[in-house]
Amino acid sequence: MSDSSPQKASHDQSTWASIATWRMAYEGMVKSSSGLEEGGQSGDAVERLIQEVEANPDYTSVGYGALPNREGEMEMDAAFMDGNSMALGAVAGIQHVLHPVSVARQLSRRHTSSFLVGQGATRYAQVSGFEMRNMLTDRARRRWELEAAKTTTPDSAGPYRGHDTVGAISLDMQGSMAVGTSTSGLFMKEPGRVGDSPLPGSGFYVDSAIGGAAATGLGEDIMKGCLSYRIVALMGSGLTPQEACDSAVYEFDDLLRNRYGKAGEISLIALSTRGEWGVATNVEFTFCTARKGEEIRILMANPDGKGGTRIEPVTEEWLQEYEHSLKAPIK
Amino acid sequence: MSDSSPQKASHDQSTWASIATWRMAYEGMVKSSSGLEEGGQSGDAVERLIQEVEANPDYTSVGYGALPNREGEMEMDAAFMDGNSMALGAVAGIQHVLHPVSVARQLSRRHTSSFLVGQGATRYAQVSGFEMRNMLTDRARRRWELEAAKTTTPDSAGPYRGHDTVGAISLDMQGSMAVGTSTSGLFMKEPGRVGDSPLPGSGFYVDSAIGGAAATGLGEDIMKGCLSYRIVALMGSGLTPQEACDSAVYEFDDLLRNRYGKAGEISLIALSTRGEWGVATNVEFTFCTARKGEEIRILMANPDGKGGTRIEPVTEEWLQEYEHSLKAPIK
Repeated sequence: MSDSSPQKASHDQSTWASIATWRMAYEGMVKSSSGLEEGGQSGDAVERLIQEVEANPDYTSVGYGALPNREGEMEMDAAFMDGNSMALGAVAGIQHVLHPVSVARQLSRRHTSSFLVGQGATRYAQVSGFEMRNMLTDRARRRWELEAAKTTTPDSAGPYRGHDTVGAISLDMQGSMAVGTSTSGLFMKEPGRVGDSPLPGSGFYVDSAIGGAAATGLGEDIMKGCLSYRIVALMGSGLTPQEACDSAVYEFDDLLRNRYGKAGEISLIALSTRGEWGVATNVEFTFCTARKGEEIRILMANPDGKGGTRIEPVTEEWLQEYEHSLKAPIK
Repeated sequence: MSDSSPQKASHDQSTWASIATWRMAYEGMVKSSSGLEEGGQSGDAVERLIQEVEANPDYTSVGYGALPNREGEMEMDAAFMDGNSMALGAVAGIQHVLHPVSVARQLSRRHTSSFLVGQGATRYAQVSGFEMRNMLTDRARRRWELEAAKTTTPDSAGPYRGHDTVGAISLDMQGSMAVGTSTSGLFMKEPGRVGDSPLPGSGFYVDSAIGGAAATGLGEDIMKGCLSYRIVALMGSGLTPQEACDSAVYEFDDLLRNRYGKAGEISLIALSTRGEWGVATNVEFTFCTARKGEEIRILMANPDGKGGTRIEPVTEEWLQEYEHSLKAPIK
């Protein structure tokens, strides 16, 4: 994006910051923020935040206990990018691995074969010593059994419900940035289906000299607009993260409705190298933010219908209902 | 990219044009050009051009008779994008399918599950009635056996040699544009490895209101810069295809050398909605062009070392040597 060294970028040396998609990122953001506060690296913060979501069986769209495909198998996608070197790693359709984001991060250290899919990705993780696990919890299996019993045709399998990606962007006190994503993709998806989360420029992008972005929503539509790269490019041309998110998301949502006839759910987060953040979304969307000297916050975004985004704290009622839903009986 | 309808874009109604990567695109360009001359669609032209390369066993980096992975298996990547609707389809790590580009094009007609990888992609192609074939010719197997016999460690497997993608962009007389890619990826690659070719924004991108781009080279480096999207965005901001290619490729090559310490082979082609083309590359790179009223040409591009590209017709000697090499004994 910019050929200036990231170290030369204007950066408030005293600041660290993170932003991540959805309420589910909160516990991981608390843990990763203490690392950033102690001078830790953005790459470690991103990986730690996402690992926390992957390991939590209550979060049903990422990692352990997430949403199986229509065959009842868990196939996961994840990515990691280093905003200093532009090195990136990604996996798609990986199975039986507790921490896909960590596999992606290790792959980002290789010059070739840094993006692996399917059995090749699973085999790499296994021979590299990553923790393997049966990712299907009893609750996940019960959820799948109920859905599979209802399904009579491929079209009624309802792949639209539940396709939340955890995406996280961090800036550390050295001015380095990183981004990561992890998801099990669409519930009841066709085996082998890949969304935007592991795709550079679509699901994630970061340049420490400018900033980073990450996406969640219907990957098939997000990738048509290469929206994470778009937002970083707009920040590089001088827009604030919020201006860049609004411009990229609402203009592309309009374009898709005009050209393609419809647009799926699209939500993007962005963080600049100064630690400023932005969000835009065409649906109700929660996210978490953290910054040196500020409280960690859970916020809610909605489109304001005029090309901008309305952002407000989540209510106590919303939080209680959310927590209740995590443990509610599956029916 | 632009929210104007592609039909409203300034377009010389009397022009059609195509550009495609490498000398191997020539025969397919001859066949697809007659379709465009008769008023045919850009999507059909792109698919037909790439099918011709996929079916030709002499072309050793795409389709039938291409380069196996280190296990001796052929795993192929392909993509297709429609510049009017922005619909796209892609496959990665697909096996035993004669025309991966046609699978990608059919997937582009679905709203979800339009990007499939690994066994899921192969199964989709098989149940959808696509022609299945043992893609490993005797020559391909012989090439693999010789390389496998030499290989003593993973690092000596030499994945760098041979990773040419056929990428093609067409504009039809209705002003519609399409882009497609197809490749078997790096010779002796790790199973599951995916390069830029199936990745939207990295290996390909097209917007009929602006233009399209496609890439060939070391996918792991091309995807770090999202170079196809970058070029289309630069054309959208007013640059000619040649200016956009020069800016994107040479600036990113510099950035990678500064930040990452090295840069692999990177070659990009672009075509505007007016039928003008551009090319930039950091290595010797051949490509083919066609345009209404002009002869179909095989050209060679090289970096001029001053941030631009030197383009000249290939010599008769070069062509003869190339044709000889296709049939030469494998040793």
